[in-house]
Amino acid sequence: MIHIHKPLMGMWWIVAVAILAHTASAAVREYAWEVEYKFGWPDCKEGMVMAVNGQFPGPTIHALAGDTIVVHLTNKLATEGLVIHWHGIRQLGSPWADGAAGVTQCAISPGETFTYNFTVDKPGTHFYHGHYGMQRSAGLYGSLIIDVAKGKKEPLRYDGEFNLLLSDWWHEDVLSQEIGLSSRPMRWIGEAQSILVNGRGQFNCSLAAQFSNTMLPTCTFKEGDQCAPQRLHVEPNKTYRIRLASSTALASLNFAVQGHRLLVVEADGNYITPFTTDDIDIYSGETYSVLLTTDQDTSKNYYISVGVRGRKPNTPPAVTVLNYVTAPSSQLPASPPPETPRWNDFDRSKNFSKKIFAGMGSPSPPETFNERLILLNTQNLIDGFTKWAINNVSLAVPGTPYLGSVKYNLRTGFNWNSPPKDYPVDYDIMNPPRNRNTKQGNGIYVFPFNVTVDVILQNANGLNANASEIHPWHLHGHDFWVLGYGEGKFKPGIDEKTYNLKNPPLRNTVALYPYGWTALRFVTDNPGVWFFHCHIEPHLHMGMGVVFAEGLNRIGKVPDEALGCGLTKQFLMNRNNP
Amino acid sequence: MIHIHKPLMGMWWIVAVAILAHTASAAVREYAWEVEYKFGWPDCKEGMVMAVNGQFPGPTIHALAGDTIVVHLTNKLATEGLVIHWHGIRQLGSPWADGAAGVTQCAISPGETFTYNFTVDKPGTHFYHGHYGMQRSAGLYGSLIIDVAKGKKEPLRYDGEFNLLLSDWWHEDVLSQEIGLSSRPMRWIGEAQSILVNGRGQFNCSLAAQFSNTMLPTCTFKEGDQCAPQRLHVEPNKTYRIRLASSTALASLNFAVQGHRLLVVEADGNYITPFTTDDIDIYSGETYSVLLTTDQDTSKNYYISVGVRGRKPNTPPAVTVLNYVTAPSSQLPASPPPETPRWNDFDRSKNFSKKIFAGMGSPSPPETFNERLILLNTQNLIDGFTKWAINNVSLAVPGTPYLGSVKYNLRTGFNWNSPPKDYPVDYDIMNPPRNRNTKQGNGIYVFPFNVTVDVILQNANGLNANASEIHPWHLHGHDFWVLGYGEGKFKPGIDEKTYNLKNPPLRNTVALYPYGWTALRFVTDNPGVWFFHCHIEPHLHMGMGVVFAEGLNRIGKVPDEALGCGLTKQFLMNRNNP
Repeated sequence: MIHIHKPLMGMWWIVAVAILAHTASAAVREYAWEVEYKFGWPDCKEGMVMAVNGQFPGPTIHALAGDTIVVHLTNKLATEGLVIHWHGIRQLGSPWADGAAGVTQCAISPGETFTYNFTVDKPGTHFYHGHYGMQRSAGLYGSLIIDVAKGKKEPLRYDGEFNLLLSDWWHEDVLSQEIGLSSRPMRWIGEAQSILVNGRGQFNCSLAAQFSNTMLPTCTFKEGDQCAPQRLHVEPNKTYRIRLASSTALASLNFAVQGHRLLVVEADGNYITPFTTDDIDIYSGETYSVLLTTDQDTSKNYYISVGVRGRKPNTPPAVTVLNYVTAPSSQLPASPPPETPRWNDFDRSKNFSKKIFAGMGSPSPPETFNERLILLNTQNLIDGFTKWAINNVSLAVPGTPYLGSVKYNLRTGFNWNSPPKDYPVDYDIMNPPRNRNTKQGNGIYVFPFNVTVDVILQNANGLNANASEIHPWHLHGHDFWVLGYGEGKFKPGIDEKTYNLKNPPLRNTVALYPYGWTALRFVTDNPGVWFFHCHIEPHLHMGMGVVFAEGLNRIGKVPDEALGCGLTKQFLMNRNNP
Repeated sequence: MIHIHKPLMGMWWIVAVAILAHTASAAVREYAWEVEYKFGWPDCKEGMVMAVNGQFPGPTIHALAGDTIVVHLTNKLATEGLVIHWHGIRQLGSPWADGAAGVTQCAISPGETFTYNFTVDKPGTHFYHGHYGMQRSAGLYGSLIIDVAKGKKEPLRYDGEFNLLLSDWWHEDVLSQEIGLSSRPMRWIGEAQSILVNGRGQFNCSLAAQFSNTMLPTCTFKEGDQCAPQRLHVEPNKTYRIRLASSTALASLNFAVQGHRLLVVEADGNYITPFTTDDIDIYSGETYSVLLTTDQDTSKNYYISVGVRGRKPNTPPAVTVLNYVTAPSSQLPASPPPETPRWNDFDRSKNFSKKIFAGMGSPSPPETFNERLILLNTQNLIDGFTKWAINNVSLAVPGTPYLGSVKYNLRTGFNWNSPPKDYPVDYDIMNPPRNRNTKQGNGIYVFPFNVTVDVILQNANGLNANASEIHPWHLHGHDFWVLGYGEGKFKPGIDEKTYNLKNPPLRNTVALYPYGWTALRFVTDNPGVWFFHCHIEPHLHMGMGVVFAEGLNRIGKVPDEALGCGLTKQFLMNRNNP
């Protein structure tokens, strides 16, 4: 592990992107990144974006399974702290490198450099993003693509690939959004102005304007415009892998390519049993790979559309073009882009989720669980401030990272009493809460090493009648098996019978549908402290998460650099004092 | 000294504003402050303001000379660090409490509490403000008023007092301003939208609209409007002390009260030889007290006007009313408010500065100096980025606070070589720099204990022809004597003869006028590290400052809590390691 510190702003150290022989087949890929704000034009309108080495989105990391990734992350922001979470990477043996502020490390202060060092153990489509305040919303994200190890065979067959990182974009600056969410009464951020594909969207114009009934003008771009959509240039009769990842702050998306079927082959970095579809739902925090075969009329181009589902959409779809190189590259298709399925056709959404099964050779889940949590998701108030709560606790991440508190057994770092493992049996999930009030807490769920944990996510009605939202839940440090989805309240002793224990997919993010439940299972085989939370940025900001800790006595060395705040800073400064 | 840490966000500790008997006459005044953003309406238009305990401006501290002030400052911001500088307090023996991020302490991270503890040794009008990034511009400021110690006699005679904290306000958010200043090419923030008095301004309306030629409507306010100006209610034939402090980010201001003369009695917390004036210039970082006698027609009210000078104004004056309680309180004056003197009548400005002499009994300066710096102020470029430089070094404050580096002799904390103490003799101050380029540096000027230092601030032409600006320079940790002002280049051996060594005023902030020089003198009697910089927030952000260190071997204990960043954090974590 390399720790380099840059004490002087005027002095520069250079770390080349070095690929050093590590083992016969694995490499160390080392990057020096600086994060700062800049003005950008993500959707052709100027806004403030967080940039990595001047790039928005940040640079794509390409690595092979088994490689070690080392990122020297320097905070060049004026006043804000910073972390980066490597979304989908399990951080086996490196829990301190997970990049969740307050959970696995302290935020990196301005002027400081923190070094992430972790191994990527299997191939998959991932991404990285800020995990402090609402910096993901501010544009701190990029792609992280792991291919099969050298000498191993990629089980998928394709001739080329595209990588599409999807996000949503607001014109209101993130600080203002955050103040609004923290105000009393809460001000909701509203729907995004634009959907971005690889950081590019088109506000107030469309590549498919002639088919739109919204009177949007047709987009015209100058060479080099930062917001011009990337067209996907393909050759006829080839197969392309399209990697999709959603870093949205809020939007659930649907992706479709005009005239082409999609073969879904990967979900959250795990091969799945391939299935074909006309379009694909993707929630915030999810990734997919689809294979697309260019078997259509080679003289034409085809629209690609990315629209909003799950919430009443007020954001036009992102539109770009699949360009057969045999057709004029600037020619627009003659028929309208694929229409995004109705936003509130939740049966359709669930049907899509239920098509996903593990691929051949994927590990099977243990047949039963050792511990089970039933986590009720509710919208509540605290003293008039709007919050989200889990079993009536709204998470307030403490100033001392959990990983440090458990590593050094700091009893005042957080409340060591477990939060509730279930919710009252008489709770009516179909109506607004009878008691609208909740409380903040920072307790965590502590598990022994190597036990099987089931989590039942239970949805409910929000503060207003007839409102229950989709929540995509993301677990750090693990893939989990998705055992099943159901309607209404989970019925212990009965609903387990509907579980798919044969070929449940391994994922790190799963949707909880309105008024329903989602069951997942994982094994506590990765000593550390792991965030589990709704991946909707404002929901997390309002307390919608829990924390799992496992194998506490097996947690290895944690670099001091990760713990230089709060009680761990005091502890480390005084540990050798007489 | 009390250090209280709040490890759990959900747990509250309460520190009452306790006034505890300390000595016979001195008290300890203890405050628990939380800083967060909120939406406010400083000039009747919504904006984001930094608030202390929900208040903007922050609460006023009232204390008596000799008191100890203890502020437990908790950072409740989502992602930003924080410090507070106690502007005008010399911090004798407590250099770590000066609140200059990167100079005397690390920024306080979100969720953490830092305790300032310092003595206020003499009466005076002061204020406090953020000193990290551009958080002063974001509204982090408040008043700090020290009265004479109990049992001592206030030499000024007055029947009542008013406290007016002046500032300027932009509608562009501070992050966007900061990105603009850091962009290539630089985007200047432009002139403020409004001038605020005690955090209140009126955008797009005026209390003196009927006399305005700008077609502004007359302001109308509802009860409790946050932007309604505070009227000064006075009784006839009394004398009032009006305390003025300027926390502006940019604007040089002029203050006048219709029909009333002002007797200027205090400058920067020091009594001066009283003189009368119709209006008073006040630069960012300065404070004054004026005495006003209510000897005019008691059936009328009178306008108070605060306008912009020194830069071509594009901000309407702030206007409020001096209300004789014998006149109807809502009645507006029948004649126009005092007109702000012509912005570029610099002779008038200098004449005002030159009227200020030390009060009776004020200590005299040493007759000569031991060391002298001649500091050339220039506007330059670094790789196309616009900067300000002093003797061709643009200050880049390092990640490790200077105070920690000098205390623990950390040789890599900054560049220990002194920056230049003079500038090339052939430099042409009347024209744009021949070499437009400068470099960043973080070297500091180190002085022995108890020597006399002269600083000659030398102005010059900026990057554009025929442009030289006013820079109000502020010194931390000291009052200095203002020995004189002059035109053109300071001529060593000649211009010293013009010094006022008899009764030069003691100040902590002094103006440097276009194409001129200003000479000041101080004694290095306060062991510590002290920032000396242009008080214009964007200028400081662009590097316009230097750092003085003195009496290094006499610096007392620095709380570890002040140094938990950068190299000092590493040092403190490892100091007792084998």
